[in-house]
Amino acid sequence: MEKNRLEAFSDGVLAIIITIMVLELHVPHPTDQRLHPNEFIDLKPLLPVFLTYVLSFIYLGIYWNNHHHLVKAAQKVNAAMMWANLHLLFWLSLFPFVTGWMGENHFTTAPTALYGVVMFMAAIAYFILQSVIIAQHGRGSKLAMSIGRDFKGKFSPVMYAAAVAAAFFRPWISCGLYVLVALMWLIPDRRIERALD
Amino acid sequence: MEKNRLEAFSDGVLAIIITIMVLELHVPHPTDQRLHPNEFIDLKPLLPVFLTYVLSFIYLGIYWNNHHHLVKAAQKVNAAMMWANLHLLFWLSLFPFVTGWMGENHFTTAPTALYGVVMFMAAIAYFILQSVIIAQHGRGSKLAMSIGRDFKGKFSPVMYAAAVAAAFFRPWISCGLYVLVALMWLIPDRRIERALD
Amino acid sequence: MEKNRLEAFSDGVLAIIITIMVLELHVPHPTDQRLHPNEFIDLKPLLPVFLTYVLSFIYLGIYWNNHHHLVKAAQKVNAAMMWANLHLLFWLSLFPFVTGWMGENHFTTAPTALYGVVMFMAAIAYFILQSVIIAQHGRGSKLAMSIGRDFKGKFSPVMYAAAVAAAFFRPWISCGLYVLVALMWLIPDRRIERALD
Amino acid sequence: MEKNRLEAFSDGVLAIIITIMVLELHVPHPTDQRLHPNEFIDLKPLLPVFLTYVLSFIYLGIYWNNHHHLVKAAQKVNAAMMWANLHLLFWLSLFPFVTGWMGENHFTTAPTALYGVVMFMAAIAYFILQSVIIAQHGRGSKLAMSIGRDFKGKFSPVMYAAAVAAAFFRPWISCGLYVLVALMWLIPDRRIERALD
Repeated sequence: MEKNRLEAFSDGVLAIIITIMVLELHVPHPTDQRLHPNEFIDLKPLLPVFLTYVLSFIYLGIYWNNHHHLVKAAQKVNAAMMWANLHLLFWLSLFPFVTGWMGENHFTTAPTALYGVVMFMAAIAYFILQSVIIAQHGRGSKLAMSIGRDFKGKFSPVMYAAAVAAAFFRPWISCGLYVLVALMWLIPDRRIERALD
Repeated sequence: MEKNRLEAFSDGVLAIIITIMVLELHVPHPTDQRLHPNEFIDLKPLLPVFLTYVLSFIYLGIYWNNHHHLVKAAQKVNAAMMWANLHLLFWLSLFPFVTGWMGENHFTTAPTALYGVVMFMAAIAYFILQSVIIAQHGRGSKLAMSIGRDFKGKFSPVMYAAAVAAAFFRPWISCGLYVLVALMWLIPDRRIERALD
Repeated sequence: MEKNRLEAFSDGVLAIIITIMVLELHVPHPTDQRLHPNEFIDLKPLLPVFLTYVLSFIYLGIYWNNHHHLVKAAQKVNAAMMWANLHLLFWLSLFPFVTGWMGENHFTTAPTALYGVVMFMAAIAYFILQSVIIAQHGRGSKLAMSIGRDFKGKFSPVMYAAAVAAAFFRPWISCGLYVLVALMWLIPDRRIERALD
Repeated sequence: MEKNRLEAFSDGVLAIIITIMVLELHVPHPTDQRLHPNEFIDLKPLLPVFLTYVLSFIYLGIYWNNHHHLVKAAQKVNAAMMWANLHLLFWLSLFPFVTGWMGENHFTTAPTALYGVVMFMAAIAYFILQSVIIAQHGRGSKLAMSIGRDFKGKFSPVMYAAAVAAAFFRPWISCGLYVLVALMWLIPDRRIERALD
């Protein structure tokens, strides 16, 4: 099985997920209170949805970037890898839903927790895909060594789990954690790993 | 005609179908009864849609995987193959509709039967595509031999037909059959074929 | 400019158009009259939309197929070709809208005429793209000769124009013409050209 | 990191954005006033949305075209370029929203200004991507020289800013400026640069 088509399919799904999310940003439609919702004030209720969209966009960007490096390093594609990849895409495909629910409900408990659950599952799915690829190449392979101890990959799900728990007390802490993890991935690799060590 | 672009187009359509299905999972919107649908309980009506989504996602994953192997084996692309491929994509494009209808109506008779009809037609369309490719390469070709007696490919439509019939008596039997066929395809090839022989 | 990316972009847009059209096939939602729209009878109002979907799907398949052959024959890509291609994609992108409007209004005059207008414009846009590519290669080129007198390409817009006119008297004649032109393209080339000569 | 996949992902996102925009062109649905919205008159309220769609379609076509040339010229892909590219895609992904809002509200102040803001941000994002790629290749590189003084690239954001300001007094001036900038990009390069110098 050629890597080529696995990449093309994943690119397609990720590109669609990232773009479909923007559909949750509904153009304000006329209501009885606002016959012509054409002022900046009419966008105010959309602000939380927009902020969540930005956050999810960054996360999907990070996933696309990491996925790219990971699959590039893989030398061949087998069935396990194919299904591990589909499993990851499944959890990522739920991003538009949780993004919309969290944004529309202004970061209240349940939606904020669910967002974390999907983040957690996606992180686990990525970890599985990575393990499948490493297993295929051997622990001593160049790929395995380049991933190394994988601090970020192991730390992220812990943070997501903490965020899910925090949502039941202070949802804004969860949101803070989501932003923090995103920043951790955005800042170039080595320095942060050293700093956090 | 180059195989390359047939694959790219099919990948695109499959990626979009698989992702568009998630739009049937509507973010719960305020109603008169629930002004702020932001509790986990508000997701309860979505559970059947979610389960159907998971099932359809797996089916589309199986189709993508098999399609990949099949087209990879083909040496050239002709008009018959192109139209057989579009015919398959047509039936797969109805997945989001039947997924949404079955999920929203909690697996009642008509939607469950229609789901099976579309599954049946997609299976037939895949069989036609496969036959067109085999015909092109000859019955003694490596491709024809690797497909072999094609137990799963012939057994699946029978199961779908049975599921359509069962929907008029016990829709849950139909759902069980859909899950069973999916599992049959997920479990690696040889063992199950031997077991079922 | 590489042909490669023009093809990839066109494939992407066509794949999305063909798949987005299915969103016009709305899952029947509860109304005051039908609290649980889960019978086959509830699909009856969708039948015209479904039939229009099938027709548009076939047309887009024909366009994809022809587009593929045309671009494959082109040796280089220039700005004129790029914009002629985008112009074609623009008219094709209106297919979901006209498909939905014609289907939902059961083939009444205005929607049926508008469907023909968009078909007509897409045919003209294809003709322009083809002319741009031929101009680039010269009238004596292999490409120009393989296209030949282009009977179908010139006959189709005439038929669409006739269908638009017919819509104001007998919309069913228009629908018949749309089906006829689709069949003309589906049936393999040489025989029909000879028959019609 | 291979350029190949960056291009494929960008093509995918652009193709989806360009096609998803057409969903803002809602098929007219029955209301109490119009039980059967099947006359040409029922399309009248859609005209501004349609015109905005045409404008945005042309802009996305220009971006796709320029993006293609720019990335083609790049010799390697690094993390900075990847994120600069995602940043550009982010602003472009807001096109369907601002297109819908401006179109549905008939070019009133706030939507017309917001359209300009997103245009402005996309132009800046493109400029950043271009600078990142030039920095990577060196100021004396062939790429840097081919881009030259980049009159259009610097003039466009100024025009967008002017359009945003104009929206608060005469929104039609803003619309005129949007059309003007699009024309400036559509007309082949050298002549207009000379004319404007």
